[in-house]
Amino acid sequence: MAEKALIVGTGAGLSASLARLFKSEGMEVAIASRSPKKNADLADELGAANYRCDAADIDSVADLFTAVEADMGAPDIVVYNPSARVRGPVTELDPVAVRDAVLVTAYGAFLVAQQAAKRMEAKGSGTLMFTGASAGVKGYPNSSCFAIGKFGLRGLAQSLARELQPKNIHVAHFVIDGGIESANRPTPADNPDSLLNPDAIAESYLHVHRQHRSAWTWEIELRPWVEKF
Amino acid sequence: MAEKALIVGTGAGLSASLARLFKSEGMEVAIASRSPKKNADLADELGAANYRCDAADIDSVADLFTAVEADMGAPDIVVYNPSARVRGPVTELDPVAVRDAVLVTAYGAFLVAQQAAKRMEAKGSGTLMFTGASAGVKGYPNSSCFAIGKFGLRGLAQSLARELQPKNIHVAHFVIDGGIESANRPTPADNPDSLLNPDAIAESYLHVHRQHRSAWTWEIELRPWVEKF
Amino acid sequence: MAEKALIVGTGAGLSASLARLFKSEGMEVAIASRSPKKNADLADELGAANYRCDAADIDSVADLFTAVEADMGAPDIVVYNPSARVRGPVTELDPVAVRDAVLVTAYGAFLVAQQAAKRMEAKGSGTLMFTGASAGVKGYPNSSCFAIGKFGLRGLAQSLARELQPKNIHVAHFVIDGGIESANRPTPADNPDSLLNPDAIAESYLHVHRQHRSAWTWEIELRPWVEKF
Amino acid sequence: MAEKALIVGTGAGLSASLARLFKSEGMEVAIASRSPKKNADLADELGAANYRCDAADIDSVADLFTAVEADMGAPDIVVYNPSARVRGPVTELDPVAVRDAVLVTAYGAFLVAQQAAKRMEAKGSGTLMFTGASAGVKGYPNSSCFAIGKFGLRGLAQSLARELQPKNIHVAHFVIDGGIESANRPTPADNPDSLLNPDAIAESYLHVHRQHRSAWTWEIELRPWVEKF
Repeated sequence: MAEKALIVGTGAGLSASLARLFKSEGMEVAIASRSPKKNADLADELGAANYRCDAADIDSVADLFTAVEADMGAPDIVVYNPSARVRGPVTELDPVAVRDAVLVTAYGAFLVAQQAAKRMEAKGSGTLMFTGASAGVKGYPNSSCFAIGKFGLRGLAQSLARELQPKNIHVAHFVIDGGIESANRPTPADNPDSLLNPDAIAESYLHVHRQHRSAWTWEIELRPWVEKF
Repeated sequence: MAEKALIVGTGAGLSASLARLFKSEGMEVAIASRSPKKNADLADELGAANYRCDAADIDSVADLFTAVEADMGAPDIVVYNPSARVRGPVTELDPVAVRDAVLVTAYGAFLVAQQAAKRMEAKGSGTLMFTGASAGVKGYPNSSCFAIGKFGLRGLAQSLARELQPKNIHVAHFVIDGGIESANRPTPADNPDSLLNPDAIAESYLHVHRQHRSAWTWEIELRPWVEKF
Repeated sequence: MAEKALIVGTGAGLSASLARLFKSEGMEVAIASRSPKKNADLADELGAANYRCDAADIDSVADLFTAVEADMGAPDIVVYNPSARVRGPVTELDPVAVRDAVLVTAYGAFLVAQQAAKRMEAKGSGTLMFTGASAGVKGYPNSSCFAIGKFGLRGLAQSLARELQPKNIHVAHFVIDGGIESANRPTPADNPDSLLNPDAIAESYLHVHRQHRSAWTWEIELRPWVEKF
Repeated sequence: MAEKALIVGTGAGLSASLARLFKSEGMEVAIASRSPKKNADLADELGAANYRCDAADIDSVADLFTAVEADMGAPDIVVYNPSARVRGPVTELDPVAVRDAVLVTAYGAFLVAQQAAKRMEAKGSGTLMFTGASAGVKGYPNSSCFAIGKFGLRGLAQSLARELQPKNIHVAHFVIDGGIESANRPTPADNPDSLLNPDAIAESYLHVHRQHRSAWTWEIELRPWVEKF
């Protein structure tokens, strides 16, 4: 039977690459985002269900998993991609925007993980993957909002790895260190590979999912060969 | 002129120890918490202003700093202590309680830091200290809620250290690894020093505050000599 | 033209798995160890050159690379596996044995990396992979000797990643957290997957080697699903 | 009775500051280095014994502790400062110089710690302090030699903290992030505090030594307020 993958936070280049790769490997794919209209073409292309979900909203996330379960069955793979931030000196940030950004980046991952874990525990297996950033391992200046969110996400993922892996649920955190190439953000002609290619990133997600459970990865860093770190 | 210290999150043993030590060193001290009644005796003892503040509420934090500034002047030292958590398997946690706990532990620290930084930048100096935990550097099983909050707090503190230290505002994150002794949690007679003595912790906060700015600490760990880590 | 892989430290189960996997993927493989006799069967099986090398000896490592280059050509992949340790309370360790163990674990990796980097820089590409351990990210009690060696190895690998990746040489450090299954250390029947399967580990080495250079991994952790960490 | 402090690696500004501060606090102080002549004035000033010791040599370290014990008694505090490095691209480093540098930076610390721990265990108490660097937590390019040494030193210190603290021996690792001011390296007039003041560093060593054992620090970072990190 085909594996079932749910990708939350579709819209960015990475989500589309993940959806295409998983589909090409024979999986059944569903996508969820705040603006399903933007993903209509991708959904058509892949024959994927295309859900609306506000990842920081308790009911919206619960409804998403109910619908996915009814339509496709409980997912074997769940990827959490959403993140938000406001940049600038701490003294100038809008505190409402900071709260909302933290909730999307870290708390939404909790909500999705909770719904996923309930179903994966019932199934006895699953893979939960979180898309992190260098901002989750280093707190940059003028980036206090994103530091809270991405450090928080990493803490969540590490806690869940310790909690769920002995239940045969593989939990992985990807530290994406660099910008991701997309239609809106093309690779500069004079510096190829200075952005991460989303298809290349997706290959590592697939590899981690496929690892034998005697050698699971909890955390993996990905960055362009030319990136300083 | 006496230094002015504001301790947010009074109630736990650490806050009282900090307040007493700072007072004994000649500082003017103010305390803030959700339940000022609990601190009435401490406030009387120290002649300290005793504010009500909900640390995760934007207006409440703004009002606190307005009041402190009017009453005592802008603080030279601000310590952020509040934290909250719900424990248990990720599948069993109440998502509303998780959100509230994350907001108190990490987002409240942002709100307090923002108000403090505005005034410290105007003054040209200050010390901002955050009380972290081992849960901020290691994600434990059945602790996903606290992992988000305390990792998030650490990310905030690191980002602010990079941003504010070049403005002469010292930012420090304390990794408290172990339980803190208190009236409700006395040290076991058969294992003295198995809990952190809050007066001992407070000495390290004072030391960090007093460091010459050519040798500032951003992060320091504190744990009992018998603690495994 | 076939890629060329040199595996230093053959003998353990991981080295044999790497050699077999790389060979099965069409690479030309050479192995090097202190006791080539032990690897005679493996070398025969793979048609691999089987060198003697003392990894902590400057001349022995230089001679190895000269011979490999003459016989097979400069390697595209070099894996460094050797490690040694003495265990016990710091007060009881033989200091000569500690020195020798540190030199094999960390300094030998430097010698091999230096010879490899010279040739990879000339070629304009290559992959350098170091086999680390949980002892490289956490200093355990009664393990001071191994802590020096494996922390030192990790520092080396991180420094080289920053230095060599912009020269198109991929540098990766694998944190192997757990025992590796082998003939001498079979998986317990009542706890399958409690040891890392070396074939499973080798798959992750191959994946890292094959990553597109816009999304290179510097560090990856591998552990059994049942391992506490 | 006066506490007894042994400072290994005297010569740099930090060692002299530590020796003066400890003496001024009433301790008996001994210093050891490869070139005791350089420290003759300091030794005279403090009435300190001034030993010759090659920190990477087993017998030299053993002889040092035998002499210190005979002259002053077993030390209560031992500080390890020596470090050495060669800088440059990995392909250009002299491997003999790299080996010697690693042995001084990390292995010498093991030798000193071993001799110190034997005596502190017999006494039932003591403080062991290691002077680390940012190179011990981040592997910089063109710094592979120092990365091995300082990561290795940090691993040693962490292992010993876990091993010896339950025996009432306080082990601390100081991450010195920046250059230290000295006669040969004066602070630039246009950027005061851009180098760490060694007297300021020494205050933190003293504080850590004096911490109550219910709240011991294992690791502390020190850097100038203007330092980027």
